[in-house]
Amino acid sequence: MPQITSAQNPRVKRAVRLRDARQRRSQRRLLIDGVREIGRAIAAGVVLHEVFVCPALCGGEHAAALLERLRPTGAEWFEVAESVFTKLAFGQRSEGVVAVAEPPCTSLGAVRLPAKPLVAVLEAIEKPGNVGAVLRSADGAGVDAVVVADPRTDLFNPNAVRASLGTLFTLSVAEASGPEALAWLRERGLHVVAARVDGSVPYTEVDYRRPTALVLGNEAAGLSSLWQAPDVTAVRLPMLGVADSLNVSAAAAVLLYEARRQRG
Amino acid sequence: MPQITSAQNPRVKRAVRLRDARQRRSQRRLLIDGVREIGRAIAAGVVLHEVFVCPALCGGEHAAALLERLRPTGAEWFEVAESVFTKLAFGQRSEGVVAVAEPPCTSLGAVRLPAKPLVAVLEAIEKPGNVGAVLRSADGAGVDAVVVADPRTDLFNPNAVRASLGTLFTLSVAEASGPEALAWLRERGLHVVAARVDGSVPYTEVDYRRPTALVLGNEAAGLSSLWQAPDVTAVRLPMLGVADSLNVSAAAAVLLYEARRQRG
Repeated sequence: MPQITSAQNPRVKRAVRLRDARQRRSQRRLLIDGVREIGRAIAAGVVLHEVFVCPALCGGEHAAALLERLRPTGAEWFEVAESVFTKLAFGQRSEGVVAVAEPPCTSLGAVRLPAKPLVAVLEAIEKPGNVGAVLRSADGAGVDAVVVADPRTDLFNPNAVRASLGTLFTLSVAEASGPEALAWLRERGLHVVAARVDGSVPYTEVDYRRPTALVLGNEAAGLSSLWQAPDVTAVRLPMLGVADSLNVSAAAAVLLYEARRQRG
Repeated sequence: MPQITSAQNPRVKRAVRLRDARQRRSQRRLLIDGVREIGRAIAAGVVLHEVFVCPALCGGEHAAALLERLRPTGAEWFEVAESVFTKLAFGQRSEGVVAVAEPPCTSLGAVRLPAKPLVAVLEAIEKPGNVGAVLRSADGAGVDAVVVADPRTDLFNPNAVRASLGTLFTLSVAEASGPEALAWLRERGLHVVAARVDGSVPYTEVDYRRPTALVLGNEAAGLSSLWQAPDVTAVRLPMLGVADSLNVSAAAAVLLYEARRQRG
């Protein structure tokens, strides 16, 4: 395996730049850090181009198993010194493997829904960690697709990838403008349920067994007026204390698991 | 109002040091950043010692109303230059007011429970943001007390204060060792429900209308063996995708709101 001992190596420098959203767009690449995350990307068919391995940091059996799975992918491998690896890694727990991958397609047209879908929609979420946490909950609740409307953070931000535990790659995820997302939901006959602090219907009084889209808005401003329409049901969560809303990823988890509970 | 224009001012330097947990313990003080957060601390009777105001940053009406509420508290006020204020503030959205306060009592002995309490217990949580997010959800769900067992992060970490939106001050919150917490719950006759990835009971099949404690564990390791006891019900959340658990604050929100739903 070729060895890289300098952080000035052009390949390493190119990969490090992928922490920046503009570089991800111009290079059409993203970084994946972590054994589980890379494993899930491989399982989902994501194309890996380069894999940087730091032997000093990836002694565990999970890492060894991952390296076996990486062999047939055709990605180029590089063994890097620990000083180089720390420039590439971004998680708090470094597992000694970082991959450079092709971003998967996030076109709404590529999403295929089953008969009675459950879809999550996130409008204008700002924090990559919140996007990732919602994806992780959507994976757990068995959501059929996640639509990121009017994205304020790049879906492939390393923190979103990490917070999603790699479910970003295994879920059906699309990006679109708000109006495109709403039109797409309407065309497919989904009942649109929007979480609002001033929602008129308690969230537990909605029948989520129908084809349903659950819509959550920006951390500070909530949902835009686009989602105030006669065919959109505005639901609220009980807020019994002093705060007027939950964190968006907590609200998403409550709504998605209530839908799952009703669906049995 | 006395004006401070240098970040080398001893008061400012002492306050800035409160970002560090050891300094919070030795000074017996904590920092509160943000208009809502300080407002909730005042409402909860937290003693404020110093308030640093940056006029250039707190033009809004909410800030003005807060300053009116601060007058009768007896806290010392200082007007600080923007360059000084940025050393004191820690949130992403700076609202121009930071307070130095006395930590409220977090003794288990001070907690008073109503007749059929709902209690949340967090064991060995590492990320201050997760502790804060769970407190915010506990506030929303109307939880009667939150017990932080074997804390790995200081409750008064600025990021916990901020993520809680100040509900840390209005909620009944206690710190204890794991065994102390479990003994306290048992003495009060609470049904202890522990969230585990290998839990034997689906979380929706538990009757949360009884006096109940919901227990959640560390982000990576989950709950310790202390919570594997004959009188503890181990529940699991359905995980229908590829990940084997939710983020701890998402799991807490789902469980607390299921308890709230059952309690009507």
